[in-house]
Amino acid sequence: MKLFEIAEILKSKDNFEILTHNYPDGDCIGSGIALALALNKLGKNTRVIFTDKPGKFDYLFKALPERDFEAEYVVSVDVADEKLLGDNKKIYEGKIDLCIDHHRSNVIAAENKYVDSDAAAAGEIIFELLPLLEVEPDRDIANALYTAISTDTGCFRYANTTSKTLRIAASLLEIGCDSGCINKEMFETKTKRRLELEKEILENLIYCADGKCAIIYTTKAMTEGLSDDETEGIASIPRQIEGVKMGITVREKEKDFKISVRTNEDVDACKFCAQFGGGGHIAASGCSIKGTLESVLESLVKAAEEYL
Amino acid sequence: MKLFEIAEILKSKDNFEILTHNYPDGDCIGSGIALALALNKLGKNTRVIFTDKPGKFDYLFKALPERDFEAEYVVSVDVADEKLLGDNKKIYEGKIDLCIDHHRSNVIAAENKYVDSDAAAAGEIIFELLPLLEVEPDRDIANALYTAISTDTGCFRYANTTSKTLRIAASLLEIGCDSGCINKEMFETKTKRRLELEKEILENLIYCADGKCAIIYTTKAMTEGLSDDETEGIASIPRQIEGVKMGITVREKEKDFKISVRTNEDVDACKFCAQFGGGGHIAASGCSIKGTLESVLESLVKAAEEYL
Repeated sequence: MKLFEIAEILKSKDNFEILTHNYPDGDCIGSGIALALALNKLGKNTRVIFTDKPGKFDYLFKALPERDFEAEYVVSVDVADEKLLGDNKKIYEGKIDLCIDHHRSNVIAAENKYVDSDAAAAGEIIFELLPLLEVEPDRDIANALYTAISTDTGCFRYANTTSKTLRIAASLLEIGCDSGCINKEMFETKTKRRLELEKEILENLIYCADGKCAIIYTTKAMTEGLSDDETEGIASIPRQIEGVKMGITVREKEKDFKISVRTNEDVDACKFCAQFGGGGHIAASGCSIKGTLESVLESLVKAAEEYL
Repeated sequence: MKLFEIAEILKSKDNFEILTHNYPDGDCIGSGIALALALNKLGKNTRVIFTDKPGKFDYLFKALPERDFEAEYVVSVDVADEKLLGDNKKIYEGKIDLCIDHHRSNVIAAENKYVDSDAAAAGEIIFELLPLLEVEPDRDIANALYTAISTDTGCFRYANTTSKTLRIAASLLEIGCDSGCINKEMFETKTKRRLELEKEILENLIYCADGKCAIIYTTKAMTEGLSDDETEGIASIPRQIEGVKMGITVREKEKDFKISVRTNEDVDACKFCAQFGGGGHIAASGCSIKGTLESVLESLVKAAEEYL
């Protein structure tokens, strides 16, 4: 479908539920909220569904009005697979009417679907929807979209950043988004506890596949008292190491281990994660594995040595 | 002076020496090289003078042709003070014909001067000079300017980033600059040795002024075998800590200690460094102090407690 057709559908409905993925990140939160605020400006009701509301995005959550209404149309944003709806899967499975996403690996079988895998973030697509919806973006929408785009590009550092990404960001600054505060909150602020965690992580770093793969891990004990926010950026640590083509971060969660894979050059992270039932982007993907820390690390080392 | 007047002067001369500052960074290297390459396109001779050529900028240095000629006109780029010419000060003191800079604190007494303190990087000014020089930027110029702008803005993360910065970066991507490789080299790659250094730094972190100031240091022993490149980014570590308004990095050099000060919110780093004969920008400044590690740390703690 074309983006103007998506805009026409959105204009024709009145009461929306907007779905985001589990372990919500800046892109799904920012894109979902920006779309909701834009639809509100057209007089429509919206409810954005989150499995979790990480505190560092409070400035976005508070821009979102609470409304009581019966939803008639379900839109998913930045969700590549219904599996990623987490606890909301049982409620919304098979009920997504419109899917807006930028993941190449998107497998959602919605009636209406718009997937642009050239977009660095779902937020880019929402930005491009605004003029088609005839919505003039305000500061709240700009903050939401700036958050979406800056977080999914590592503040314009990752290879998915295009000239379009940068021009959109420039427009968002001109609208008055608070990029200074957002950047500081997202990319610059570390708690003392977080710095200690980094020390511990570096002490337990594992190299494999002749140094082409580096694996770090956090256990529940190591991250006790730390919020998901505070542990989030760590996934970029192992890939940064000279000579490392694939950086793997293993995080012990309640029921399983959450694996984040970041790759350099020609290594396909999505294909690597697919072996474990996961997916994502070519340079950044994820999956979940059940087991003990030892067994999970062993499987990953084995898979990495075979893969690289 | 207006920028078009600067362009007219540059067009009227033929043989240039372009000065950069000591401890050269991405902005002075990228801006100096971009200006040289642009002038070369107009058939002029250029020589860019560096006190040092950090290896990580080799992709820029190799774009620069070696020429033998007698210089008639001296241009400084990104140099706020003749003192910052390092060993070249004795050769060029009082001989700068044209000064192009973006430091508010610029005190160079050149006959012709263009200082735009709203520019995030000197590279922005050079980019704006290109159409006035009637030079079509090529990929080498774009790589040099992208390096200049991305390094001086922490890859568009620092508060000096404006919509103009982002639009210029977008244009550089459209010209074909290799932002992916440059970002990776500048912002993503850490050697194993560098990661070890970070661990050591975190172990020796000093908090003062009720946690509003954090100081880190490196000694010659700690950085032995590490290049200046590998230790560069550490100056951003202390400012990142939650609650810290001023982050100070102390690096032991041959003859003295090089101090880098990074501040948040309303704290003026330039004024703080001026007490020690240094200067720079409001949020990022530097100075040098002689003494022992203990005496330097003591002076800084005392100054920080009085200042904050």
